[in-house]
Amino acid sequence: MCGIVGIVGRSPVNQALYDALLVLQHRGQDAAGIVTCDLEGHLHLRKDNGLVRDVFHEQHMRNLTGPMGIGHVRYPTAGSASSAEAQPFYVNSPYGITLGHNGNLTNASDLKRELFLEDRRHINTESDSEILLNVLAQELIRQDGLAVTQEEIFNAVSGVHRRCQGAYAVVAMVAGRGVVGFRDPHGIRPVVFGRRETPEGPEYMVASESVALDTLGFELVRDLDPGEAVYIEMDGTVHTRHCAEQATLSPCIFEYVYFARPDSVIDDVVVHRARMRMGTRLGKKILREWPDHDIDVIIPIPDTGRTVAIEMAHELNVKYREGFIKNRYIGRTFIMPGQTQRRKSVRQKLNAIGLEFKGKNVLLVDDSIVRGTTSREIVMMARESGARKVYFASAAPPVRYPNVYGIDMPAAQELIAHGRSEGEVCQAVAADRLIYQDLEDLVGAVRKGNPRLEDFDCSVFTGEYVTQVSRDYLAHLEERRNDLAKKKKEREYANLDLYNNA
Amino acid sequence: MCGIVGIVGRSPVNQALYDALLVLQHRGQDAAGIVTCDLEGHLHLRKDNGLVRDVFHEQHMRNLTGPMGIGHVRYPTAGSASSAEAQPFYVNSPYGITLGHNGNLTNASDLKRELFLEDRRHINTESDSEILLNVLAQELIRQDGLAVTQEEIFNAVSGVHRRCQGAYAVVAMVAGRGVVGFRDPHGIRPVVFGRRETPEGPEYMVASESVALDTLGFELVRDLDPGEAVYIEMDGTVHTRHCAEQATLSPCIFEYVYFARPDSVIDDVVVHRARMRMGTRLGKKILREWPDHDIDVIIPIPDTGRTVAIEMAHELNVKYREGFIKNRYIGRTFIMPGQTQRRKSVRQKLNAIGLEFKGKNVLLVDDSIVRGTTSREIVMMARESGARKVYFASAAPPVRYPNVYGIDMPAAQELIAHGRSEGEVCQAVAADRLIYQDLEDLVGAVRKGNPRLEDFDCSVFTGEYVTQVSRDYLAHLEERRNDLAKKKKEREYANLDLYNNA
Amino acid sequence: MCGIVGIVGRSPVNQALYDALLVLQHRGQDAAGIVTCDLEGHLHLRKDNGLVRDVFHEQHMRNLTGPMGIGHVRYPTAGSASSAEAQPFYVNSPYGITLGHNGNLTNASDLKRELFLEDRRHINTESDSEILLNVLAQELIRQDGLAVTQEEIFNAVSGVHRRCQGAYAVVAMVAGRGVVGFRDPHGIRPVVFGRRETPEGPEYMVASESVALDTLGFELVRDLDPGEAVYIEMDGTVHTRHCAEQATLSPCIFEYVYFARPDSVIDDVVVHRARMRMGTRLGKKILREWPDHDIDVIIPIPDTGRTVAIEMAHELNVKYREGFIKNRYIGRTFIMPGQTQRRKSVRQKLNAIGLEFKGKNVLLVDDSIVRGTTSREIVMMARESGARKVYFASAAPPVRYPNVYGIDMPAAQELIAHGRSEGEVCQAVAADRLIYQDLEDLVGAVRKGNPRLEDFDCSVFTGEYVTQVSRDYLAHLEERRNDLAKKKKEREYANLDLYNNA
Amino acid sequence: MCGIVGIVGRSPVNQALYDALLVLQHRGQDAAGIVTCDLEGHLHLRKDNGLVRDVFHEQHMRNLTGPMGIGHVRYPTAGSASSAEAQPFYVNSPYGITLGHNGNLTNASDLKRELFLEDRRHINTESDSEILLNVLAQELIRQDGLAVTQEEIFNAVSGVHRRCQGAYAVVAMVAGRGVVGFRDPHGIRPVVFGRRETPEGPEYMVASESVALDTLGFELVRDLDPGEAVYIEMDGTVHTRHCAEQATLSPCIFEYVYFARPDSVIDDVVVHRARMRMGTRLGKKILREWPDHDIDVIIPIPDTGRTVAIEMAHELNVKYREGFIKNRYIGRTFIMPGQTQRRKSVRQKLNAIGLEFKGKNVLLVDDSIVRGTTSREIVMMARESGARKVYFASAAPPVRYPNVYGIDMPAAQELIAHGRSEGEVCQAVAADRLIYQDLEDLVGAVRKGNPRLEDFDCSVFTGEYVTQVSRDYLAHLEERRNDLAKKKKEREYANLDLYNNA
Repeated sequence: MCGIVGIVGRSPVNQALYDALLVLQHRGQDAAGIVTCDLEGHLHLRKDNGLVRDVFHEQHMRNLTGPMGIGHVRYPTAGSASSAEAQPFYVNSPYGITLGHNGNLTNASDLKRELFLEDRRHINTESDSEILLNVLAQELIRQDGLAVTQEEIFNAVSGVHRRCQGAYAVVAMVAGRGVVGFRDPHGIRPVVFGRRETPEGPEYMVASESVALDTLGFELVRDLDPGEAVYIEMDGTVHTRHCAEQATLSPCIFEYVYFARPDSVIDDVVVHRARMRMGTRLGKKILREWPDHDIDVIIPIPDTGRTVAIEMAHELNVKYREGFIKNRYIGRTFIMPGQTQRRKSVRQKLNAIGLEFKGKNVLLVDDSIVRGTTSREIVMMARESGARKVYFASAAPPVRYPNVYGIDMPAAQELIAHGRSEGEVCQAVAADRLIYQDLEDLVGAVRKGNPRLEDFDCSVFTGEYVTQVSRDYLAHLEERRNDLAKKKKEREYANLDLYNNA
Repeated sequence: MCGIVGIVGRSPVNQALYDALLVLQHRGQDAAGIVTCDLEGHLHLRKDNGLVRDVFHEQHMRNLTGPMGIGHVRYPTAGSASSAEAQPFYVNSPYGITLGHNGNLTNASDLKRELFLEDRRHINTESDSEILLNVLAQELIRQDGLAVTQEEIFNAVSGVHRRCQGAYAVVAMVAGRGVVGFRDPHGIRPVVFGRRETPEGPEYMVASESVALDTLGFELVRDLDPGEAVYIEMDGTVHTRHCAEQATLSPCIFEYVYFARPDSVIDDVVVHRARMRMGTRLGKKILREWPDHDIDVIIPIPDTGRTVAIEMAHELNVKYREGFIKNRYIGRTFIMPGQTQRRKSVRQKLNAIGLEFKGKNVLLVDDSIVRGTTSREIVMMARESGARKVYFASAAPPVRYPNVYGIDMPAAQELIAHGRSEGEVCQAVAADRLIYQDLEDLVGAVRKGNPRLEDFDCSVFTGEYVTQVSRDYLAHLEERRNDLAKKKKEREYANLDLYNNA
Repeated sequence: MCGIVGIVGRSPVNQALYDALLVLQHRGQDAAGIVTCDLEGHLHLRKDNGLVRDVFHEQHMRNLTGPMGIGHVRYPTAGSASSAEAQPFYVNSPYGITLGHNGNLTNASDLKRELFLEDRRHINTESDSEILLNVLAQELIRQDGLAVTQEEIFNAVSGVHRRCQGAYAVVAMVAGRGVVGFRDPHGIRPVVFGRRETPEGPEYMVASESVALDTLGFELVRDLDPGEAVYIEMDGTVHTRHCAEQATLSPCIFEYVYFARPDSVIDDVVVHRARMRMGTRLGKKILREWPDHDIDVIIPIPDTGRTVAIEMAHELNVKYREGFIKNRYIGRTFIMPGQTQRRKSVRQKLNAIGLEFKGKNVLLVDDSIVRGTTSREIVMMARESGARKVYFASAAPPVRYPNVYGIDMPAAQELIAHGRSEGEVCQAVAADRLIYQDLEDLVGAVRKGNPRLEDFDCSVFTGEYVTQVSRDYLAHLEERRNDLAKKKKEREYANLDLYNNA
Repeated sequence: MCGIVGIVGRSPVNQALYDALLVLQHRGQDAAGIVTCDLEGHLHLRKDNGLVRDVFHEQHMRNLTGPMGIGHVRYPTAGSASSAEAQPFYVNSPYGITLGHNGNLTNASDLKRELFLEDRRHINTESDSEILLNVLAQELIRQDGLAVTQEEIFNAVSGVHRRCQGAYAVVAMVAGRGVVGFRDPHGIRPVVFGRRETPEGPEYMVASESVALDTLGFELVRDLDPGEAVYIEMDGTVHTRHCAEQATLSPCIFEYVYFARPDSVIDDVVVHRARMRMGTRLGKKILREWPDHDIDVIIPIPDTGRTVAIEMAHELNVKYREGFIKNRYIGRTFIMPGQTQRRKSVRQKLNAIGLEFKGKNVLLVDDSIVRGTTSREIVMMARESGARKVYFASAAPPVRYPNVYGIDMPAAQELIAHGRSEGEVCQAVAADRLIYQDLEDLVGAVRKGNPRLEDFDCSVFTGEYVTQVSRDYLAHLEERRNDLAKKKKEREYANLDLYNNA
């Protein structure tokens, strides 16, 4: 998962981009980047691995001049092996274009080959964002004009839609011209845009989530439609167009379950409310299927389990208590010469308050269960703290299939529910009872916020992908993710990309 | 406020000290330091301004060898002007002693003069920790022995108690000998110690809070009594002794309100439970004084208002909702040449979820109100989000007097309740109604966890200090804090102390 | 002035490129960069401002994988305002090309306009190297092939020669294909190439000076001819071709006077020997024009005056003595708040040994006189050390005109000999007598090493440029250099280019 | 070898100390440090490994406030194993004292034991400077006064002379009081002091070499006598006294041969002149012992061989030529994973100009021959460059014994002349003839500058030490140096001392 932002302002935008990236940091903590364009059309870039607050120093900010720019926070995704390929990416031909992207292309290797054989474009990294940028660049070259009109931009985006498969929410900037935002024809990843009035005229922002608009005082105009593009020229003129031949909105349901900030509104659904409804429905399911339950207290796994748990407690009329405290400050485990790596434990992240568990039947609530190792450790902690019975509820159904749209999930074999029944998962996480949300309840909880939402990408639960995904790709992905887990350490320095002097 | 830790182990303690400092990081985010002692008696130090995760790199950890060490996280306190004086401090005479301290000495300037005139000891910084270390060192010199016996150590601590006034929870290490922990004769600041069994023998930890023991697998032995010291020799022998002539336990009540982690146990009171009881009592007060209240929803100010708010909701039988989302990722506001500093707003830290406020009478719950500026901004945010009425509850009584025991609070004039009635504060924060906890309720909520706790330091509410504090000192403090606020920026680099090569 | 190097090897070339840049560091101390290409065709780049030893750390070197690469050391040149534009530069279309360049294009702004209007290529920096790279890239695109044959490469270089005016010695690398070196049609800047046998086969190096070959154990094959290109494919195949329609060798005579290392051989002339002959001829001139001279001792300005002075001493049969000691370690003058900048004095760089001057008539010998301020200060130092008479000899004739071929010289007005007679310069530097080398002697001293050298660029002495240079360009240059002197400080951070995350 | 400096000024001294350290950098390139004292008596320290220009950044300089301070550049010496113990060192008891030292104590381990057993002072590093500082501190404690009078200072220095054996040139500073310089009773290492008039009154500097005075505009007052101390109070009052019971001047003759800058004057001898006389005497020896020599050209090993070689050439009436060019820019050899370390060759430091050697009988001239490996490589380079015969002259006699006074020389077994006749050394360095200076000539060359110099430390040539040195110490030293050579790499991080946060 990644976060994107683009601003066309009336005064320097470096601080605003920085602040927006802070607000979007939950979407990616691995790397951050900003590129700005000054009034003479020069681009200024800073990107590196690390958190926003660590990547940008005063000297970098001083260099990021100009009233227009884009930014990116990165999380390593399926398509990108290396943890060293920060975005935005840049090509100088044509016009000087920079681009940041949230999502994943499932036909990246075909595109890469094409780009070299047909257009002689060199792709230097493993990042599909570099590929996407070059496809866009090549489509713009075909437009054959100097003015970079909305016509040309939108034609080029249409070309991207024709060639690229997968999920992509994109922000790009053409030097001296403007900022472009667009969303793939299924609208899998979110993109919103907003407007802020200033004495010098209106300013515009494109971003992954509405919370970035809120925090910076921009008003939400709306979500981009699937396949739609917005082109904000440097002078503040705004154009939008639907650029895909066929477009149907199928947003990723996992944004609502886990990824998005609760205070964001995605496709007209308040995420926080959707999560509350997940809690209510999950509560109802328990009342329905287990009317004589003996739950004494409901305890969330912080932070994401909280909203769901509160509403479950209301629904079940059971006490809600905070029983785990999250360690806010995370550090490293250092490997000293002659030592072997200690296993990182959930105990470094969570601590249980014994009194809340002692002698009680507790229902632990989390947003979802992926690998299951953390869930199991938490169940054990509850037991060690004296719980009599430990039940576990997941606001999402069993996660059984890999994600191909930009969420960094493990290979299928590593998913605890892959090939296991719910009962088997319950046993595997050592719980006394396990309650999964039903998929229709999950979908219903989200759709209730916006009944026009007909479809979602629920592939991690169902294995049905809203775009065409080849078996080869899935096999390749599986292999790669297994591979990556092993090689993570050694690759650390392997791919510092061409633009990265770190 | 600061956090201290000391470990005498059987194998390298650098990682354990680092992990403990992470857990104690909430007590101080300004600076961090670790000093270890290797088997040949050599000390190894690393300290700097910054978070634990930023201060210690692999190279530093590799250098921090040895099975014994102490650590410190710092928050700038009343007595310490400079933000650049990281701890632990060191003197080489006698024995090689290092020390870290949580608290504040109210007779520091007298001690400093004495140390120079009588003992010719140079104090190079403004930190009272350096003074405390030198008092301890001088008391040890008086013992006149080479062996550094428990007798000598405890005599020296008694000397410290005779000379030092104020609050101090201390961890010190004598090179090649052992680790000492001690607590002032009123036990104002907390200190616990614990034990962990290993195949090589037992290991001991002294720490500010029990949560550091929990997380690292140590078992809590007990809190140090007021005036008590523990001396853990390098071979694992443990000695304790009461070293003060008169000792009465009067722990700082603000630890329970705000500072300590909820999952800590201080003087046998579970902090989390104390906060729950604060919520219950505050709820009862509302029922009592405002039986016909029209509160629709209770919304906490995250993170510390949460526990109190949940129990108030139970008590009042009103819905509890999360209405503010805290930005977890904090960055900087850069001052570019030619720009003036933008005012830092609470909006960079909190974002409201509009739906939870719209058309409702909301009761906002926070742990306390200090300056009042944040409270006021939050009330405004609630109104802008559409709240009909905005009520505000504080789990602590009005804060009207400065803290002299190590909590970094503003000068009295900057406290919103200083010289103001509750009604005036209500008006100042723009709330429709303001409910303060009564002091006896606060004390009762804590004491219920341990009825033997007869006394607390409640000076910020009452102006009555449990130790003797001169008028001169208070006047000096007031001046200094006002002064500091102004000079903060310029002093940034002014006092990088002698041990600090940053 | 800059230094370039390119290597096609049989094993990793990072260390060899690094070592070569160290040897070429005298040609540029402002910035350094290396880009390598690995066996999969990926490029790896590291560049930054600073000395070679400061720019490349272990982590960077580990990333610079592959058996082929190019490197660059930079000196700010006429065409490049910013001190922050390190080389090599990169474009990904076509093929992935990187390039480093020594020299200066006098039609850079025309080319930049052309590149945008005709080819829609964005130039992001003020560096003419980025322009040169894009011209080369565009010429390669015209070749319209995927194989990147020698035919295509050489045709593209011919295109560069047609479009670019000025001086340029270039090394470029095409990802996955090979390294190209070429020299402008007047051969103003030097380029050599050499070969080293290894058990795995021959390796090739292209470099600015032969001393880089020597130090790394490569054997000098030869200088590139004017307009000639060499293309070394990744498999070790070597091609050369003359690519300019008209080519005449007119090397820059200042390389022999000052820039090149004495142990280099440029266009078959041993630089050290040329300098010795300059001394001999200058000695003869004194004997001729001032037969009754009263010089007691000849003292060089270290380091470059030494060789000339030794031979003058032989010729005049006067004692040669080292009278100035150069400070090898250079630091900064820090501007503290509230202080004004102290004038940097030559005394921080040179110290006189009093005994060598006291009561003597000394002849100081330097390679040339440019601004004259240093010369004047040195003359004053000699007087203060007790010299009776101070004479001054310059191995080069009066420098009266700006350099447009890549030497970072001041604007004409700042040249002490600009508009001044030799007598006036003598007075201006406060010498008792001033002896300039005659131009024919200088040319003769160099040509004697290779009689086939018919022409030189002597424009700084004569104002006659070997290529066409427009009045506009000269006026522009003058303005710019004056401007730069003023703005130097503020621009420091202004143009960190797109590839530069420093 | 190390360099020391101390200044008592009338305005901030940070830049002056920095500039002085730059000038003294040839005495130590491993580490650098400055400590200043401000008007309130606070000390400010910055020290780290690295060159002066790399250790001090703007932020550090800003922190180094006050009109008084001392500085140090370090070279790892016999007594100090670790490359991470930068100076000055600090103790806070009594008064706050900092100290930097050039030399070596031969009874360091006895002193260390004494300091702990008698004074309970902890020594945390392997540096004898920390020991020296603590001896001084303890001697001052014995003086038992608060005023820190000259009487007390000089008594304490007398105490140091009684307890310490070896060579030591020391600069120390007492916080708020003044700067002390002193020289051991044999005056083995140099110390000078000087004075500069300013409008605010006179300023004083103590330094290792007079060149530091020259460059900063101070006038040399004189060398300190052996056993003498100078105490400059903060108000500018200067006191001197002879503090040793028995003092005889026996300066280290190697300062004249190699270490000192040629433009320094040590004990009234101009180093440059002494080196010239070494050349003359060595020339005479050749004429005497080899009257029919067939030397065609004399070529120095730069930089130190130059002065000697010029005068030899005058004496022998043979041409002097520069045949080797020194690489001024030094970098690292990186060890990549899977590679073995390449042997560092002299070829990375020197390059031969072939023409100067081809077909000639060359006499190479160096200041001395220590390990002999470099000499041998240079002889080989001369041969490969085509020399017919290669003769080698050393301005110093055979180096056969270890240095115990602060020069970082290898163990005796590694000295090529240890246990070898001159003929055997000649063979070992592969020369056709080897001419060593005779010791009486070396002594004579130096003494001629100051006939009052009756004695020198010539122990590396004779094995006779001017102070008492125990067999045990020599054996220990030998073992240690052998040991160090092996462990150098691993110890890199081992001893970052207590004051060193690097």
